[in-house]
Amino acid sequence: MRFFILLEGDILARMTDEAYMQRALELALQAEGNTSPNPMVGCVIVDAEGNIVGEGYHHKAGEPHAEVNALAEAKQMAQGATAYVTLEPCAHYGRTGPCCVALARAGIGKVVVACLDPNPKVAGQGLEYLRLQGIEVVTGVCEKEAKRLNERFFTWITKQRPFITLKYAMTLDGKIATATGDSKWITGEEARTFAHRLRKQHDAVLVGIGTVLEDDPELTTRLVRGKNPVRVVLDSSLKISLMAAVLNPLADTIIFTGLDSDIVKAEALAALPNVEVVRLPLADGVLPVAQVVQALAERGIASLLVEGGSAIHGALFDAGLADRVCAFVAPKLIGGAAALPPVGGAGSSLVETGWQLTEVEMEKLGSDVLITGLVPELDKQELPKEAE
Amino acid sequence: MRFFILLEGDILARMTDEAYMQRALELALQAEGNTSPNPMVGCVIVDAEGNIVGEGYHHKAGEPHAEVNALAEAKQMAQGATAYVTLEPCAHYGRTGPCCVALARAGIGKVVVACLDPNPKVAGQGLEYLRLQGIEVVTGVCEKEAKRLNERFFTWITKQRPFITLKYAMTLDGKIATATGDSKWITGEEARTFAHRLRKQHDAVLVGIGTVLEDDPELTTRLVRGKNPVRVVLDSSLKISLMAAVLNPLADTIIFTGLDSDIVKAEALAALPNVEVVRLPLADGVLPVAQVVQALAERGIASLLVEGGSAIHGALFDAGLADRVCAFVAPKLIGGAAALPPVGGAGSSLVETGWQLTEVEMEKLGSDVLITGLVPELDKQELPKEAE
Repeated sequence: MRFFILLEGDILARMTDEAYMQRALELALQAEGNTSPNPMVGCVIVDAEGNIVGEGYHHKAGEPHAEVNALAEAKQMAQGATAYVTLEPCAHYGRTGPCCVALARAGIGKVVVACLDPNPKVAGQGLEYLRLQGIEVVTGVCEKEAKRLNERFFTWITKQRPFITLKYAMTLDGKIATATGDSKWITGEEARTFAHRLRKQHDAVLVGIGTVLEDDPELTTRLVRGKNPVRVVLDSSLKISLMAAVLNPLADTIIFTGLDSDIVKAEALAALPNVEVVRLPLADGVLPVAQVVQALAERGIASLLVEGGSAIHGALFDAGLADRVCAFVAPKLIGGAAALPPVGGAGSSLVETGWQLTEVEMEKLGSDVLITGLVPELDKQELPKEAE
Repeated sequence: MRFFILLEGDILARMTDEAYMQRALELALQAEGNTSPNPMVGCVIVDAEGNIVGEGYHHKAGEPHAEVNALAEAKQMAQGATAYVTLEPCAHYGRTGPCCVALARAGIGKVVVACLDPNPKVAGQGLEYLRLQGIEVVTGVCEKEAKRLNERFFTWITKQRPFITLKYAMTLDGKIATATGDSKWITGEEARTFAHRLRKQHDAVLVGIGTVLEDDPELTTRLVRGKNPVRVVLDSSLKISLMAAVLNPLADTIIFTGLDSDIVKAEALAALPNVEVVRLPLADGVLPVAQVVQALAERGIASLLVEGGSAIHGALFDAGLADRVCAFVAPKLIGGAAALPPVGGAGSSLVETGWQLTEVEMEKLGSDVLITGLVPELDKQELPKEAE
């Protein structure tokens, strides 16, 4: 014998909405790593009987938006149907025409969106257009997941700079390298494969010259399928070797250096077809991270993965330029008062004024644990309660 | 319709053996924190029909052993029954008489033990006696769990020193305090309650004078039920205040200091009824941890929880005196090149020659994660394989 629980109509509707939106989010994710600087967007069109009659997602910048692809699949079945879209349909005439117009013309009866356009100047315009056409509009379904999916894009639009993820692997006693600089290998294979997947998800990956000299990494995504990110090296005095693996032709490379660096070497580097050398005035002998980030933004880098050392991570935190942390913790200790911590810089003078991550997730990867979370903006910090 | 899987007789027996031994381990654990320097031991007596007819555990040193308590409950039903004991029954005449003789006299037909006596001089003697009496003996059932249960006791017997657990709470960027020394509060309430439970499980808890001056901790188990450990403070130049909470009458306190420390203050401290001051020659200006551990062993401390800072943990690792690590990791960052890491000292020069923990366990406690594991003896380390 079975029991059925009767739900209020609106709760049932919301559950169904969420199921379809989850599918739209899945579709969006299929273009992971390919849409920059556009967001990943998915769309599902559902008829009155609840059948999915069209699915689509945005494949890459310059190609049709998710709604257009889904409508193309639904054809005349779009008439009177409901469209689930992970992001507010656009209202502007870009390369592909406004999606809200396309939805209205196809006869869509109802539009459910996960979140509004992050650009405050245009947010709500697409939905407003739809409402004026007599189309029912529902918002906020799976909003958190949708914002997480496009956190890089949201930062790009609202802050005009790349979303910055700091990734590091540390021992259980909080070191990324021994006192002598050795760091091979703190984590296991699963964690290293995951790190390659992280690279694929970002437009660019940034390291310091110390990493290049010590490990000679290629900074590609060879352990996973997917495009290679632009490689960025901070090298204030241009110590990089012309034979460094990071200069190989598998991806573009941008080298940041000081104004006084060896001009002959800089020219030799810049002569490589895939390499750009950017000179910046040093501040206290180091490259100013805010200007580096600005220069990357100007080159269309909307998401940046930083695989830095102590100093680079510290400078980014101190400058308020850390958005997400992906920390691998290995069940291994190396000791050493002089061993390097993952985040240097000036830091916070009190624990309670530090950075308490939000939306924290923990995952076991092989014998390591991956802990990720969003870095709060400092004025949003809460004070902790008193206790021992 | 149901399906039955036929198991070989010996597999079935082993499964039953493990279930009864698990119960014996549960019983043993009821005396957690009370048996030192004796081990925790549990015993279950099972009749031919599989009914438990007697249960017992060792409550505290000087009181009857687990087997004697279980036999007292089983009375004449012990005749022909099987005894499950978490540790090899003793064969020596101590305060309570040899348990192997008691088992034989009660008519026990079979004895199942989890692990042998850790003392190589007497290991196997109890089982040998039982076999000579015609009693069937099975060993190694739940051996790993039983050894883990009494890891402190095993170290005490085999190394004649306390089992040493290092406990610390660090941020996700590997710091136990900010550059200015602030450490309140890195972890949440659940983690702090767990830390009090850890104290209860140890004979003594050790901190450095820095912790005493900074936090003025009581070092008791007030967040959980249970006895307070002996409190140990390393204070090379006797900076402790006579009003320090760690000197309150709730537990005994041992203060280690250098030979040159203020003699008047030392006498005032030693005049407190619960305080002992131990003077040791300093080595390079610091208290030599090996001698501290030796002095604690001489005072019957069989298990030591170290809630130290960077320097103490580093010195213990460097001296090969770390047996277990309990690290809380909080999803919070504080940055700072000068902030303190959990383990200082000299450390390992290479990652691969560091300490790879074994029997690693991870547990979420509130928003923090607790990672624990056994520190390997260095000559047992494996070399890692090559990969990026």
